[in-house]
Amino acid sequence: MKKYWSRRIRDMVPYVPGEQPKDRIFIKLNTNENPYPPSEKALMAIQAAADERLRLYPAPGCEDLRQAIAQHHGLLPDQVFPGNGSDEVLAFCFQAFFDPDRTVLFPDITYSFYPVYANFFDLAYHEIPLRDNFDLPVTPFCGRNGGVVIANPNAPTGKSVGLENIRTILDANPEAVVLVDEAYVDFGGISAISLISEYDNLVVVRTLSKSHSLAGLRVGYALGNPNLIAALCCVRDSINSYTLDRVAQAGAAAAIRDESYFLETVEKVIHTRDRCSEELKRMGFIVPESSANFIFISHPALPATKLMDGLRKKGILVRHFDRPRISNYLRVSIGTDQEMDALCAALEKLLESGD
Amino acid sequence: MKKYWSRRIRDMVPYVPGEQPKDRIFIKLNTNENPYPPSEKALMAIQAAADERLRLYPAPGCEDLRQAIAQHHGLLPDQVFPGNGSDEVLAFCFQAFFDPDRTVLFPDITYSFYPVYANFFDLAYHEIPLRDNFDLPVTPFCGRNGGVVIANPNAPTGKSVGLENIRTILDANPEAVVLVDEAYVDFGGISAISLISEYDNLVVVRTLSKSHSLAGLRVGYALGNPNLIAALCCVRDSINSYTLDRVAQAGAAAAIRDESYFLETVEKVIHTRDRCSEELKRMGFIVPESSANFIFISHPALPATKLMDGLRKKGILVRHFDRPRISNYLRVSIGTDQEMDALCAALEKLLESGD
Repeated sequence: MKKYWSRRIRDMVPYVPGEQPKDRIFIKLNTNENPYPPSEKALMAIQAAADERLRLYPAPGCEDLRQAIAQHHGLLPDQVFPGNGSDEVLAFCFQAFFDPDRTVLFPDITYSFYPVYANFFDLAYHEIPLRDNFDLPVTPFCGRNGGVVIANPNAPTGKSVGLENIRTILDANPEAVVLVDEAYVDFGGISAISLISEYDNLVVVRTLSKSHSLAGLRVGYALGNPNLIAALCCVRDSINSYTLDRVAQAGAAAAIRDESYFLETVEKVIHTRDRCSEELKRMGFIVPESSANFIFISHPALPATKLMDGLRKKGILVRHFDRPRISNYLRVSIGTDQEMDALCAALEKLLESGD
Repeated sequence: MKKYWSRRIRDMVPYVPGEQPKDRIFIKLNTNENPYPPSEKALMAIQAAADERLRLYPAPGCEDLRQAIAQHHGLLPDQVFPGNGSDEVLAFCFQAFFDPDRTVLFPDITYSFYPVYANFFDLAYHEIPLRDNFDLPVTPFCGRNGGVVIANPNAPTGKSVGLENIRTILDANPEAVVLVDEAYVDFGGISAISLISEYDNLVVVRTLSKSHSLAGLRVGYALGNPNLIAALCCVRDSINSYTLDRVAQAGAAAAIRDESYFLETVEKVIHTRDRCSEELKRMGFIVPESSANFIFISHPALPATKLMDGLRKKGILVRHFDRPRISNYLRVSIGTDQEMDALCAALEKLLESGD
C-alpha cells in the first residue's frame, strides 16, 4: 500500500547499504569500514565540541573544516564543499550539474548508488560496459554527454583509472561536468585533484568514512572550481542550510589535520591488502589488482554465494552484488591482519570441504 | 557565471538562514535558538559516543533514537522518521508526498523555506493569505488539494492554530497529505500528534533545535502512520542511507529522555516570553500572542528596519523579513531574562530618541 506516495518514489528501488548486524559479533568485512579507530585528536575534538554551544546553529559555511580540507589538498577554501557524507554530496552533484534530457554516463559495474540517483532525479543515463578485466574503456565516455561519473578507484572492483584517461574524458566533455568519485583513492589510486586548476568541468568527491576511519561521523566533500562549488551551495541551501552539525565539523577538521595518523593507518591497510591478495591468489582466487580498501574475489571451484554463506556461518560478513557479470564475485573489505588471516583460513576450509 | 549549473538551480533563490556572526559578541535574538544549554545528559552521551566505534557506519534505522522519540510521544517506533534537522525532514516530505501537477497549499506568511522547497522540487503551490491578524483561515485549505503545509505555531508570527481547525483540514483533504510543522509547539502550541492514529494523511514534523537546545546537532523528525514513514525512508535511501551520524543519534536520544530538564527550560522560555511581551505592549508595541520561542513585534512610531539597525548598533541581533504585509515587523527570539531586559531597554532608548 503506497497511498499518498508521490509518483517520484512509487516505483523507486532505493540503494541498499551493507548489513549492520546487531544480533552477534561478526568479523565485518562487508561495508568497507576501516579496521583502525579514528584519530585520537578527532575524538578529542568531538568531545570538546559537546558543550553548551550546541544550543547554537552550526557555522553554515563550515569555514574551519573547509580550511582544513583545502590545506590538506593544497587548494583554496572556495574550492571545497563539505556535506553529510559523500552520498549526500554525490546526490547534490546529480542535482546541481545534470539535466533530465542530457544523458549521463557511468560504467555498468560501479557504485550502485549512481543509477539510484539518476532514477530518483529523473535523469537519462547510460551504463557503459567495463572491459572483461573490469578496466574502464575511455572512448565511449568521449562525445556529447550530459555528464560523466567515474569512481576511481572503482567500486566494487577496486581497479584504478590512470590520470591520462581522466584527462582525455575531461577534454572530450567541455560542456558537461565530469564527476570523479575518489572515495577510495587514498589506498593507492591516482587523484584527479591536480587537474582542478586546469579544468572548470571537474568535480572530485571524497569521504572521511574510509581512509579517515570516520564512517560513523558522516562527512564527505566535493572539490572543484568556485563556480561548481557555488552550484552545490545553491542545492544545499534549497534543501537544508546546515547539513553538518557542530560536532561533525569539529571532528572532521581534526581528523584531516592529523596527517601522520592518517598516513599510518592507510599504509597498514595497503600492506594487509597486498599480503592477503597474494595469499588468496595462491588459493586459486581471481583477485583483480585493487587500489582500494577492499578486494573483489572470485574462485573457479565454488560459487560466490556459497562462499558468502559459508563465511557467514563462520562469523565473517562479506558483500555480494546480485548483478550481471559480477554475481560470482565477493567484495571483501580489508580488516586487520588478524581478521584477514581468519578470512583466509575460513576460505581455505570452505574450499577443502567444497561446501 | 553559471556554466554547468543544471536548469533546476539556474534560477533558484535559496533559503537564507539568519546571520551567525563571527566578528563580535552579540545578544543573538535572530535565529530562535534556545538561550539555555542542552541537557547535560545529552552532552555526556555525545562524549561517550566519540570513541573507536566511529569507524563504523551508524545504525541506518536509528533504532534507539526512534525508540526514545516514540516513547516521548506515546507512539510506536515505526511511526517515527528521524533526519538531519527538520529542514531535511521537510525536504524529504515535499519529495515523498507531493507531485508537480497537484497544487500544494501553505499560508502566504509562514516559514520561508516552504516556497523554496516547492520551487526546487518543481511543485505547483498556492499561498493562502492569512487574515489581517495573522490567524489561519480554514476554508481555503479545504478542497481538492495536492497537499497542505501548516506551521503550528506559525513562523514568524508565533500564532497557534486550534486542533479543531487541523481536524477540519485533514477531513477535507482525504486524498492529500497534511503536513503540520510543529518546530515551536513545545512553547505553548497545541500538537496534532493525538490525531495520528485517526488520520492516515497526517504528518507532524518536529525539531530538537529549539525546545531541546540542540540547534548545533541537527536532528529533527517526522511522525505519522507507518505507510507515510516508509515513503520517507524510500526518499532517504534514494539520497543518503545514513543521514544521522552516531554522535547525533546518541545525543538526541539522551536529550529526549531527559524530560525534566526539557520541561524546565521550556517553562523558563515561556515565562520570559510572556513577561517581555507585556513590557513591549506597555511600550506601545503590537505583539500578536505567541505560542513559540519568539515574538513578532511592530511599533507604530518607528519603522522595523530602523529599529533593527538601531538594535544592531547596540549589539542586539533580531530578524527582519522584507516581505509583503510583514515588512514592518521584527521577529525576536526569546533569550534569557537578562537578554530580554537588555532588548527592552535598548528599544526604549530607540523610541525615546526616535532614531
